[in-house]
Amino acid sequence: MASALNFYFDFSSPYGYFASTRINELAQKYGRRVDWHPFAGAPLKPLNSGTSLVHNPAKKAYTERDYVRTAAFHAIPFKLPTLFPLDTRYASRATMWVESTQGEDKGIEFAQAIFKAYYVNDLNIGDPAVIVTIGESIGLNTEQLTAGMHNSFTKEQLRAEIDLASAKGVFGSPFVLLDGEPFWGFDRFDQLEAALKAKA
Amino acid sequence: MASALNFYFDFSSPYGYFASTRINELAQKYGRRVDWHPFAGAPLKPLNSGTSLVHNPAKKAYTERDYVRTAAFHAIPFKLPTLFPLDTRYASRATMWVESTQGEDKGIEFAQAIFKAYYVNDLNIGDPAVIVTIGESIGLNTEQLTAGMHNSFTKEQLRAEIDLASAKGVFGSPFVLLDGEPFWGFDRFDQLEAALKAKA
Repeated sequence: MASALNFYFDFSSPYGYFASTRINELAQKYGRRVDWHPFAGAPLKPLNSGTSLVHNPAKKAYTERDYVRTAAFHAIPFKLPTLFPLDTRYASRATMWVESTQGEDKGIEFAQAIFKAYYVNDLNIGDPAVIVTIGESIGLNTEQLTAGMHNSFTKEQLRAEIDLASAKGVFGSPFVLLDGEPFWGFDRFDQLEAALKAKA
Repeated sequence: MASALNFYFDFSSPYGYFASTRINELAQKYGRRVDWHPFAGAPLKPLNSGTSLVHNPAKKAYTERDYVRTAAFHAIPFKLPTLFPLDTRYASRATMWVESTQGEDKGIEFAQAIFKAYYVNDLNIGDPAVIVTIGESIGLNTEQLTAGMHNSFTKEQLRAEIDLASAKGVFGSPFVLLDGEPFWGFDRFDQLEAALKAKA
């Protein structure tokens, strides 16, 4: 069986959210699975272009408009969150802990629930308590999740995963590696599909 | 008749070149003309994200790969120029002078010839002498073009055009305004077409 796609995303990236609504279906069409890799934006921020938004009001206004227009174009439910962007380290740690201890499928289900909570229901996913509530809604054990997302091994693991992603050339969200070939951005899913098709 | 699209581009932007090969055809399909607006990148550089390429080797490597892959995906002839990026002020001034004195159509023909010289034939379009040679190849008068691209009125006009573009929210290349609605990037041409269709 062909190897899994590696899908990197930041919960604070709307384009990462858009990608999350399509990546599994796209991969399945060509007989592939997807490994989901959450990363907290902070350690990557000095490298990516997101920081320029702060210094460029025209670009910031454009980007917010583009989120809404892109969601509508692809028929993806979306509302720009009240708190945006925000700290996604707890969301990322929790997701990674679930993937590691409850399996990849449960981790994906959790990540999708977090994305929906943020971009559809406008919840503050920067708050660890909100993350726990989302976990409960998909049947995760409250105490275990709380302990798991806060323990130091999880914290170290996330840091190592981000270092590994950076070493592989990942610098933004969403980012997909298909047998090592990089695709950055939801707007490269047409080229990603062409590459999947060529290898199928 | 519906108003013209405003198309902003930097000769040193491959995505601007890709857009230049499609914009007229796309607009015509929906009964529109296109006003072409060259700008030299330098005055816009502090605002856009292009500068981050210098500081991020992974992003730089990715972007060069993306140019080639995107060109192939859209069947656009392309070779990454030996000198890249380069100073496009003379190319921009010359194009603007031709548009102002020989008409928009001749200006577009000239801009297309400059893009082709750079991204297909690997010529140094940062050199004013190369710009003049390109002008000659489409029948422009050598002395008039040389004088026109170097005179201070042209220089001031380009500066004013860039200020005006910035005031309208333009911050990158390619950038299209459709009745004031902004579209940044060749990868938004699908959404641009949807908007053109909705208004046709």
